[in-house]
Amino acid sequence: MTSSSWPLGFSATGLAAGLSKKKGKKDMALFMSHVPANGGAVFTNNQVKAAPVVLTHDRLIKTRGHVRAVIVNSGSANAATGRPGMHDALTSTGWVADGLNISKDEVWVASTGVIGTRINLPKYKKGAKRLMDRVKDGSVTEGALAAEAIMTTDTVPKKAEITFLIDGTPVRIWGCVKGAGMIHPDMRGPRGQLHATMLGFILTDAAIRPAMIQRALEWVADKTFNCVSVDGDTSTNDFVCVIANGVSGAKEITTTEERAYFAFRSALHEICERLTTQMAMDGEGASKMVQIFVESARTETAARQMAAVIASSPLCKTAFHGADPNWGRILAAMGRSGVKFDPTRVRIWLGDMLVCKGGVEVPFDEKAAITYLKNKRLIVRVDLGLGKRWSHYKTCDFTGQYVGINAGYRT
Amino acid sequence: MTSSSWPLGFSATGLAAGLSKKKGKKDMALFMSHVPANGGAVFTNNQVKAAPVVLTHDRLIKTRGHVRAVIVNSGSANAATGRPGMHDALTSTGWVADGLNISKDEVWVASTGVIGTRINLPKYKKGAKRLMDRVKDGSVTEGALAAEAIMTTDTVPKKAEITFLIDGTPVRIWGCVKGAGMIHPDMRGPRGQLHATMLGFILTDAAIRPAMIQRALEWVADKTFNCVSVDGDTSTNDFVCVIANGVSGAKEITTTEERAYFAFRSALHEICERLTTQMAMDGEGASKMVQIFVESARTETAARQMAAVIASSPLCKTAFHGADPNWGRILAAMGRSGVKFDPTRVRIWLGDMLVCKGGVEVPFDEKAAITYLKNKRLIVRVDLGLGKRWSHYKTCDFTGQYVGINAGYRT
Repeated sequence: MTSSSWPLGFSATGLAAGLSKKKGKKDMALFMSHVPANGGAVFTNNQVKAAPVVLTHDRLIKTRGHVRAVIVNSGSANAATGRPGMHDALTSTGWVADGLNISKDEVWVASTGVIGTRINLPKYKKGAKRLMDRVKDGSVTEGALAAEAIMTTDTVPKKAEITFLIDGTPVRIWGCVKGAGMIHPDMRGPRGQLHATMLGFILTDAAIRPAMIQRALEWVADKTFNCVSVDGDTSTNDFVCVIANGVSGAKEITTTEERAYFAFRSALHEICERLTTQMAMDGEGASKMVQIFVESARTETAARQMAAVIASSPLCKTAFHGADPNWGRILAAMGRSGVKFDPTRVRIWLGDMLVCKGGVEVPFDEKAAITYLKNKRLIVRVDLGLGKRWSHYKTCDFTGQYVGINAGYRT
Repeated sequence: MTSSSWPLGFSATGLAAGLSKKKGKKDMALFMSHVPANGGAVFTNNQVKAAPVVLTHDRLIKTRGHVRAVIVNSGSANAATGRPGMHDALTSTGWVADGLNISKDEVWVASTGVIGTRINLPKYKKGAKRLMDRVKDGSVTEGALAAEAIMTTDTVPKKAEITFLIDGTPVRIWGCVKGAGMIHPDMRGPRGQLHATMLGFILTDAAIRPAMIQRALEWVADKTFNCVSVDGDTSTNDFVCVIANGVSGAKEITTTEERAYFAFRSALHEICERLTTQMAMDGEGASKMVQIFVESARTETAARQMAAVIASSPLCKTAFHGADPNWGRILAAMGRSGVKFDPTRVRIWLGDMLVCKGGVEVPFDEKAAITYLKNKRLIVRVDLGLGKRWSHYKTCDFTGQYVGINAGYRT
C-alpha cells in the first residue's frame, strides 16, 4: 500500500496481536523513522493521565524532541494502572529500543481502550516483535494498516496526506487519527496545556527543529483537535505527535519567522483539519457532522467557549439528529455558556437561513429548514454582534446508537 | 382531592386550556392565597431569561416579597420572545389581578414549553378565567391537578407534603415541581444567583417574613434543585417559589436565629429533597436514578463541581444504563472536572463495593457489581482523601429514549 505523499524515510504498519477483545482486529501499530528525527507532541490535560502519556511526555522533555519510533496499542488504555502500568510502558518501549537498536528515550508509546485494566504483556511482546520484523528493512509504507490498528469504536480509519513545496522541494506530511468517543480533546504542550481519547500520529519528511514542530503543533491542535466534541468527555490518554526526519532534502526550518515555517504550519493545519472532520463524522453513533461557528465575539476564547457549550449540549445535538430547527435550544445553551453577551443582538443561522434575530424568531420556511437539517453536514452560525473575534467547534448529532455503543462497551 | 397537609388558606387547581399540542392535556395552573402572603423565589442564572422570569423577579423586588397568586402555563416557554413576550406576560397577569381583585404586582407568572414561540393569548385568557372561577370561593385543594398541568415531558406529576410543629402548632408545607429535560438547574436569588426548566411551587401556612423565606429557599435550593442534572442543559425558565400565608396561626418567624426558622428550613429541605429525587427518577428516558457523592474534598464547592461533572458525563451515564462497573469513566470524568486532586488517594465505591483504591482497580466481584447496577436507585461514592467537605448530585442514566424524546420534541 503506497502513497505519493508517504514521507520519505519512514515505515509504519499495524497488525492483530490479540489485545483487542474482537478476534482478528488489528490492535498494534508501529511508526518509525529510519534516520534520526525530531518530534513534538500535545498531551491530555486531564488530571488522570495514563502511563504512556506520562512516559512519552518525560521523554520528549528529556531528549529535547528527539524521537525515532512510536508504538501504539488499542484494547487497553493502560490508565489508572498505577506503578504496574508504568512498569508495563517502560518494559514495552524497552523491547522496541532493543529490537530497533535505538535509545529507549527515543521510543514513544501510546495506548487506547478500557481504563483500569493492564495490558497483556506476553501478547504485546510477540506483537511488537512482528511489527519490528516487518518495518526494519527499508520503507514499509503500511500507514493504512497502522490507522486501522489504532481504532477502537471508530467505524472507519482516518487518514490524510498532503505534499507541498519548500523552495521548490516537495515535502510530504501524512497523518492518521483515531477517536470516536470520549472525545472532547483538551491537549496542551509539555510545558503549557491543550482536550479526547484521540490519538494522532503525523509523519513528515520536512527538516524542522523540535521547538518549531512544537510551536506549529500547539497552534494547529488548538484550532482543530481541541475544537471537536463527540460527548464532552475528555480522555486520560489523548496524544498527538508530529515526527519530522528531514529526508525530503528541503532546507531546515529553524525559526518561526521563515516563510517555510508558515508553509509547514499551513500544511499541518490542513491535515489536522481534515482529520478532525473525519473524527466528527465518525463520532460514536453519529449520523451527521455539525460545525458550530460563533462570530462577532469580543475574544476568540469567549467564542470558542460558547461554541464548545453548544457543541456539547445534548438538547442541541438531539435536535440536530431529529432535523428540528429548534433554535431556542441553541440560545439556551449560549445563555449557560458562561460567556457574557446581549441576547437582543444575537442572530442565528441554520445553514444560510436566518432563524433568529435580536434574540427572537424571524419568519423562516420551516419545511426548508427541516430539509436542510437532514443533510450529513450542517453549519450553524451564531453572531453575537459584539466584536470581531470568532471560533468554531465540530461535533456530531446525538443518537440512540451512541447510548447502545457505550452502555455495552466493556461488559 | 384533599390532603391532610394541604396548607390552610390556599387554593390551587389546573386545567386544559388548549395551549399544549397534546389534546386535552392540562396546561394551566393557578396557585393563590386567600389572604395577604409573603414569598421568596429563585430564578434561572441563564443569561437568556424568559419574560415571566424577568417580570416575576422585578415584582419580588418591588413588593419586597408580597404575593397573592402565581399563574403557570405549559406548552410555551415565552422565552426569546422579546418585547411582545413581555407584553404577553404583563397582560396575562393583569387579567389575574383583575379577576381576583388584587394588585397586579402581587401576581407572579411562570411558563414552560417551546422556546421562541408566543403564547396563544385568547386561549390563555379563557383558561385563566376558568381557573379563577374555580378557586375564588373558599379553599380548592386541587394541587394534584396543578401538578399535572405544569408537566411537559414529565411522565408523572411530582408532589410532596409535610406537617411539622412550631411551638405545638401544626404547620403545613405542600410543593410540586415539573422537570424532566433541560435539567441542570442553576438558580439564584434575586440579588445573588443559583441551575433546569424546572418549575417549583411550594405553599405553606407558616408565618414567616419574606427575607427569612428567601434565605431558607436559597440555602435549600442550592443543596437540592441545584444538585440535580438530567442533561446538563440549564433552562431559560427555571423558577421555584415559596409562598407563606401565616394561616396556621403559628408564631411568626422573624429572624434566622430562631428554632422555628430551623424547623421551617429543615421541613422545606425535606420537601425539596423529595421533589428533587422525583425529578431525577423521571428524567427524560431515565430507567434509574443515580446519586453521586464526592467526599473528603477540600471544599464543598470543589466536591459539588466534581459531582456535577460525573453526573453530567454521557459516558458515565451510559455505563450506569448498561449496568457496566466501568469505574475508569468515573475517574476520567473526575480528571476533567477542573477540581485538583491526587489520583493516588482516590477511592470509588459502587454501592458498598470498593472498586478503585489509590486510583487503581481493586479486586471486586464483577458479577455482584453488575447485579447491583441493575437496581433502580444507585449510589456512587468517591473519596478524594484530601479534606472534610462533601457534596452530592442526583442524576439519571442516559438512554436511547432520551434521544427519541428530544429529537422529536417540537417537529
